[in-house]
Amino acid sequence: MHWKVLESKALFKAGYLHIREDKCELPDGRIMPRYYVIEFPDWVNVFPVTREGEVLLLKQYRQASGKVHIEVPGGSSDPHRHESMQEAALRELLEETGYEAGEIVKVGAHYPNPALQGNQMHSYVALDCKKVAEPNLDPYEDLELYPCSLQQVEGHLLAGDIDHSIMVTSITMALNYLKNNHK
Amino acid sequence: MHWKVLESKALFKAGYLHIREDKCELPDGRIMPRYYVIEFPDWVNVFPVTREGEVLLLKQYRQASGKVHIEVPGGSSDPHRHESMQEAALRELLEETGYEAGEIVKVGAHYPNPALQGNQMHSYVALDCKKVAEPNLDPYEDLELYPCSLQQVEGHLLAGDIDHSIMVTSITMALNYLKNNHK
Repeated sequence: MHWKVLESKALFKAGYLHIREDKCELPDGRIMPRYYVIEFPDWVNVFPVTREGEVLLLKQYRQASGKVHIEVPGGSSDPHRHESMQEAALRELLEETGYEAGEIVKVGAHYPNPALQGNQMHSYVALDCKKVAEPNLDPYEDLELYPCSLQQVEGHLLAGDIDHSIMVTSITMALNYLKNNHK
Repeated sequence: MHWKVLESKALFKAGYLHIREDKCELPDGRIMPRYYVIEFPDWVNVFPVTREGEVLLLKQYRQASGKVHIEVPGGSSDPHRHESMQEAALRELLEETGYEAGEIVKVGAHYPNPALQGNQMHSYVALDCKKVAEPNLDPYEDLELYPCSLQQVEGHLLAGDIDHSIMVTSITMALNYLKNNHK
């Protein structure tokens, strides 16, 4: 079912938005003249559980939706740092919460929107987390810690309070991992 | 936690990509000079169950990821049609599968990526679906029907074979609804 790329060019850049335009040939010979792709580095996020068994969720305001969303820590991997995805996840955990993980496990990877962007979200569970510093946020991050019990996280998920699709997927993967391995 | 928009301007348009740039004031007075928002209409998708109890999943090639993904039917609502979200879901179901629903139920809504785009995905379950036509695809859609049992859908979800974040969220909502209402 794969498409052949006949031409590919950079179309637009502003900040972290890099948009590419591809001309493609479909397997049946149709030519798609313009397919737009937003080129992002891979992303990471982490479901952090403290030594006391609390989950470190966040409440974060997102200007695109104009709403506060319940999320887990995470962000973009940084190609300039030459870091692994796991290192990026630990860095984001420390920056956004001030916590370090005793153990970190990858629980899956998923595509935030493969119709529009090619990158993946790499999802981790961090266990035995302990506070070692104050959060050190990016200049325009606007978030607060929202610690919950595992039962509260499950309740928020079932009630639809967690309504950010990428977070729903990562949190579901994390809860499945914990159910199968730690309960 | 809400931000105040000081200025907002259209920045770039190509096809369905409309990018806006906002200048914002955070609650603590910080000024964020440029926040990029991709303006999409709301999206819809539908988890269709036939009279025979089969789920009509799709396999669809997505050029941005260069991969085939397991999905459910859906697409964008069309502001020019003045259709409700439910009407858009039924239209996409008919276009992509050739099936009509005997009953349709909204199971939730979620934000595909509220850091980047403000729109929501409205998720439905369609019951008692029957075939009334052949699929009538958009010019460059490239997909095939992939009928599964409910147990196969659950298996694909747990195994990570369904790796499109938005689909994972919609399918999880649909399965929760069916568990609570129809099993």
